[in-house]
Amino acid sequence: MKAVVKTKRTKGMEFVEVPTPKMGPGDVIIKVRIASICGTDVHIYDWTRWAQHRFTPPRIIGHEFVGNVLKMGEEVTRVKVGDRVSAESHLTCGYCYQCANGYSEVCRNFKLLGVDHDGTFAEFLVLPEHVLWKNDEKIPDEWATIQEPFGNAVDTVLAEDISAKTVLILGAGPIGLFAAGIARACGASLIIISDPNNYRLAIGKKMGAHIVINPRKQDVTQIALEATKNNGVDVVLEFSGNNQALNQGLKVITPGGRISILGIYERRVNIDLNKEVIFKKIRIYGITGRKVFSTWYKTSRFLSSELVDPSPIITHQFSLKDYEKGMKLMKDGKCGKVILTV
Amino acid sequence: MKAVVKTKRTKGMEFVEVPTPKMGPGDVIIKVRIASICGTDVHIYDWTRWAQHRFTPPRIIGHEFVGNVLKMGEEVTRVKVGDRVSAESHLTCGYCYQCANGYSEVCRNFKLLGVDHDGTFAEFLVLPEHVLWKNDEKIPDEWATIQEPFGNAVDTVLAEDISAKTVLILGAGPIGLFAAGIARACGASLIIISDPNNYRLAIGKKMGAHIVINPRKQDVTQIALEATKNNGVDVVLEFSGNNQALNQGLKVITPGGRISILGIYERRVNIDLNKEVIFKKIRIYGITGRKVFSTWYKTSRFLSSELVDPSPIITHQFSLKDYEKGMKLMKDGKCGKVILTV
Amino acid sequence: MKAVVKTKRTKGMEFVEVPTPKMGPGDVIIKVRIASICGTDVHIYDWTRWAQHRFTPPRIIGHEFVGNVLKMGEEVTRVKVGDRVSAESHLTCGYCYQCANGYSEVCRNFKLLGVDHDGTFAEFLVLPEHVLWKNDEKIPDEWATIQEPFGNAVDTVLAEDISAKTVLILGAGPIGLFAAGIARACGASLIIISDPNNYRLAIGKKMGAHIVINPRKQDVTQIALEATKNNGVDVVLEFSGNNQALNQGLKVITPGGRISILGIYERRVNIDLNKEVIFKKIRIYGITGRKVFSTWYKTSRFLSSELVDPSPIITHQFSLKDYEKGMKLMKDGKCGKVILTV
Amino acid sequence: MKAVVKTKRTKGMEFVEVPTPKMGPGDVIIKVRIASICGTDVHIYDWTRWAQHRFTPPRIIGHEFVGNVLKMGEEVTRVKVGDRVSAESHLTCGYCYQCANGYSEVCRNFKLLGVDHDGTFAEFLVLPEHVLWKNDEKIPDEWATIQEPFGNAVDTVLAEDISAKTVLILGAGPIGLFAAGIARACGASLIIISDPNNYRLAIGKKMGAHIVINPRKQDVTQIALEATKNNGVDVVLEFSGNNQALNQGLKVITPGGRISILGIYERRVNIDLNKEVIFKKIRIYGITGRKVFSTWYKTSRFLSSELVDPSPIITHQFSLKDYEKGMKLMKDGKCGKVILTV
Repeated sequence: MKAVVKTKRTKGMEFVEVPTPKMGPGDVIIKVRIASICGTDVHIYDWTRWAQHRFTPPRIIGHEFVGNVLKMGEEVTRVKVGDRVSAESHLTCGYCYQCANGYSEVCRNFKLLGVDHDGTFAEFLVLPEHVLWKNDEKIPDEWATIQEPFGNAVDTVLAEDISAKTVLILGAGPIGLFAAGIARACGASLIIISDPNNYRLAIGKKMGAHIVINPRKQDVTQIALEATKNNGVDVVLEFSGNNQALNQGLKVITPGGRISILGIYERRVNIDLNKEVIFKKIRIYGITGRKVFSTWYKTSRFLSSELVDPSPIITHQFSLKDYEKGMKLMKDGKCGKVILTV
Repeated sequence: MKAVVKTKRTKGMEFVEVPTPKMGPGDVIIKVRIASICGTDVHIYDWTRWAQHRFTPPRIIGHEFVGNVLKMGEEVTRVKVGDRVSAESHLTCGYCYQCANGYSEVCRNFKLLGVDHDGTFAEFLVLPEHVLWKNDEKIPDEWATIQEPFGNAVDTVLAEDISAKTVLILGAGPIGLFAAGIARACGASLIIISDPNNYRLAIGKKMGAHIVINPRKQDVTQIALEATKNNGVDVVLEFSGNNQALNQGLKVITPGGRISILGIYERRVNIDLNKEVIFKKIRIYGITGRKVFSTWYKTSRFLSSELVDPSPIITHQFSLKDYEKGMKLMKDGKCGKVILTV
Repeated sequence: MKAVVKTKRTKGMEFVEVPTPKMGPGDVIIKVRIASICGTDVHIYDWTRWAQHRFTPPRIIGHEFVGNVLKMGEEVTRVKVGDRVSAESHLTCGYCYQCANGYSEVCRNFKLLGVDHDGTFAEFLVLPEHVLWKNDEKIPDEWATIQEPFGNAVDTVLAEDISAKTVLILGAGPIGLFAAGIARACGASLIIISDPNNYRLAIGKKMGAHIVINPRKQDVTQIALEATKNNGVDVVLEFSGNNQALNQGLKVITPGGRISILGIYERRVNIDLNKEVIFKKIRIYGITGRKVFSTWYKTSRFLSSELVDPSPIITHQFSLKDYEKGMKLMKDGKCGKVILTV
Repeated sequence: MKAVVKTKRTKGMEFVEVPTPKMGPGDVIIKVRIASICGTDVHIYDWTRWAQHRFTPPRIIGHEFVGNVLKMGEEVTRVKVGDRVSAESHLTCGYCYQCANGYSEVCRNFKLLGVDHDGTFAEFLVLPEHVLWKNDEKIPDEWATIQEPFGNAVDTVLAEDISAKTVLILGAGPIGLFAAGIARACGASLIIISDPNNYRLAIGKKMGAHIVINPRKQDVTQIALEATKNNGVDVVLEFSGNNQALNQGLKVITPGGRISILGIYERRVNIDLNKEVIFKKIRIYGITGRKVFSTWYKTSRFLSSELVDPSPIITHQFSLKDYEKGMKLMKDGKCGKVILTV
């Protein structure tokens, strides 16, 4: 089969012929129909420091997809041939302290699809049955493939109740934009997005933001305070991975508010813990992964009910072999989500 | 001044001239502009068993309103003449076990506006400063007056997170209808309303219900199960005060779900606690009053942002002297909310 | 092997020779060392109405135990021969709406050990690996066998934070008594137990109750109010399954408080929902099962750290063949927990 | 009257004669019986950078105390002459966004007793009625005076449920030591305290710590991992205000765990947000002040029930005029809590 493979410990990838994967008795073979590109894939392509430490070639990359069950191991009982599925990208162990206590999203032994296990940028994909998610028939393929990152946004927004809250979103990449749509769908009464990329701010407007700010040209703090009668925002959702943006966010949270952080930082961060967190009694939520499968249920319902319409965010579609066009757009920030037909 | 007064311990009320009320140093005199009728007012009019036990004539009735500050006692500091205000109808003590622990909505010593303290169906109204709510300038008078019952709906809907949940609303009186709008605004993915009154079901549709059911003609259980892939609903919001509806609601909650109950019952209720609550691990929330003032903040934001448009529910407007027209409509169920201009 | 088998649809059971059970590839054979008697087992013995509807003979009964792994199917990876284990008695499906959302304790398809699956009152027991719990080495066998019902008490007590709360426990059967010990270990500042059985009240005292009440001779309401400066209790834990006790409990909860209910009622219950739940803004938690495995972790830690010493509750020990002696004691209420050595 | 007054913008204070304070109609004059020294008072004494920015002489210092009501303004209704009281040290405004939403502990306009309002190191003290707390008769004066900082510990420990959790406490000053006692009383199954001061570690042992660590001599990480079967601790309570300790704490929290931070840092902190917070899905709680009055209720109950016995922490008692002896002991770390008789 054809697949996008990270073959060497240098920049770049290859679109090559590889053997069709084999499955065990608890596995399923899936015919991939659409895969989508995540920032993680770009890191692997670029062979950044993170990738150098975390990734071991050769490996088929990609962890977002929609496809159909083609074949099943003899112990598989929950899906059948033809089922249209996506999957949780964290292949969890099921028995560590975290899994046993209901926090499998931080499983101590998880394997990441497209990093530790051959990924979704391929014609066929093998996965254990327990990570599969059967897609709601109302959700089109183009939306089904983005449920995994959408779930990140769901958990970031809903770490606490968002309804009737004022919200500042830092970072308008695809997940930040999903978050805007989710916050809007869940009754946030004021949504401000800050990002230096005007292309993405324009999408933010379409997703329901009341105010968009380019922090290179505008004063985030001043605008946020004015929009909230000088109270500051109840909620900050941080997707930028930028220490300066984080500090700005902490500064404009109202005392008693909360911040959820999904963004990944280039290095250790520096914050004024006394003034911005302790004296203001702020709650900080680190966010990663998705609750299996409660986050997937929420995601599926937001999309199938059209409470959130992610169309403005899905800006580009290529065939799998042209994956590098998508990678380039993402590096240039001239896109929302890029999907790849297989 | 003119006011609607319950003068005698029999059915009926009178629209009469009474002395303008006097205020103390911590009080405010308000010129009422609009008041609105609650089911409680109809109970007092009809002199039902509840009213006979709870109400002592003579008393000006009414507890919902919007008006302007006319005059202030010397110790008042938070409002000024002209401020457009509404008020929390529970005049709380501030120091009982409940007030001291942050549950002033169930204050042990509270006085109810229009029952224990002269009410809002009058030209002028005296209230202590601490119950006043300054209205957002974006909210029109017709909406400002209904914030008190709207707040009941807010607390009923948001007793737990409602986003991406399936919801059954029992009872489509004004508060049930507000609840439909709030649930919709907060991201409920399926909203079903059940009520025997088709007039009100039609309003429910406008407020965002996906399915409306007349339980006299349709099978609530069957419809709710079909709409939820046989899982049952995640959330029941009970406003009907009808034991049979309550049982229906409990029956169709999915195991692990919750029910919030605001409806008041004519007598003790009879439920299958084993099967419908214990073995299903259901959470039941009794709901009364409003959190002071966090519920008011939410209410104000839902309305000022137009996340909830209550217009379809505000069906009738009369002048205060014609209050009996409103009372009659309410008894006949041929209205949503009735407001009275003063 | 020898086992206690419910052989016929009448009162009674038999201690008989049966074939040693067989296992599948994901199963484990366990040599049972101690089993313990639950009220459910007595219901099955007595062939009560509940048992007639729920139980199909022939079946080995019992669901509480401690034992050692004797043999494992080829797919078993988490335990090894000799491991000292107990098990969650709900054999869950893992994929229903409830399991997928983190509420496997109300799995729609669960099978109950000793009711739907051959039980623990036997020399050997077969269980799927996923329900096994490896026991902490600090916990003696006599305590390890009672972890399953202890977990019920954990979830009842900890449905909300109990620390610095005043608590009324209704019903001093073994689970109510466990609850007293857990509430004490978790910082409840006042623990009152009400039960008509003085034998069990005496154990309640040993478990940390500050006040014990025999409701046949004393006024529960009056004592609870006096002990709480007339506020009523913050928390009621209802284990009695008695409608009158439930009403008493609801009556003495302070407004804003909560009740957790594990007790099972003979018939539908009748309550004053308006006065005792709605106007007081009470939260009711139906409790069943255990969170898998977070409740087990808590249970294990309470016992291994000796924060709770359940010794006063484990009043009798017999050999398995003398199981009827234990059944009789339980019916007479002249015991706490009865354990059976195998 | 005699009082300890910060008279000048330099190091030191004076024990001098000052006029007896005057009260308004809503105030109370209290005869102080015991006051206690907080780290804040030492900062003011030493005229540290924080003090230079925050404090304006002249001012009577001190915010912890117990005393009796001597005289009341005419509007005071909740206390009477002779009542034994302590008080919330945050004099809140009651109407800002935070106060109105139930977060008065981060009131935007609060005045701090002993900093913005004449304090407790004096014979007499004037306070508005609304901050008074009537002491439980079972609590001796020596314990009553420390309820204010004890409440800080309560909120730090109980930011989430602590029962059956493993806990690392960083910093064994008086509040860290209170926290150990509270965690123990609330069912923490393992309590580790780390502090470089052996004198205070010895008190930690008495307060219920299972393990005490001197980080200058022992490896905190290794000990914490060994004690938790390599899972790391569920909860970190950070009182040290030391960035290195904070990092150590973050490192040993188990994924999915939480940290509560009350310690104040000398400068901005530097943390590995990716690795220690985001990828581990940690919750961080900034803690300040006390919930008014729910924290006071908890505090009072822990002390009056003797669930927590703070005696080992109250190591020294002087008369008010000898306050400098206490200041010195605190700077040398050779004490727990120092109380002053007036």
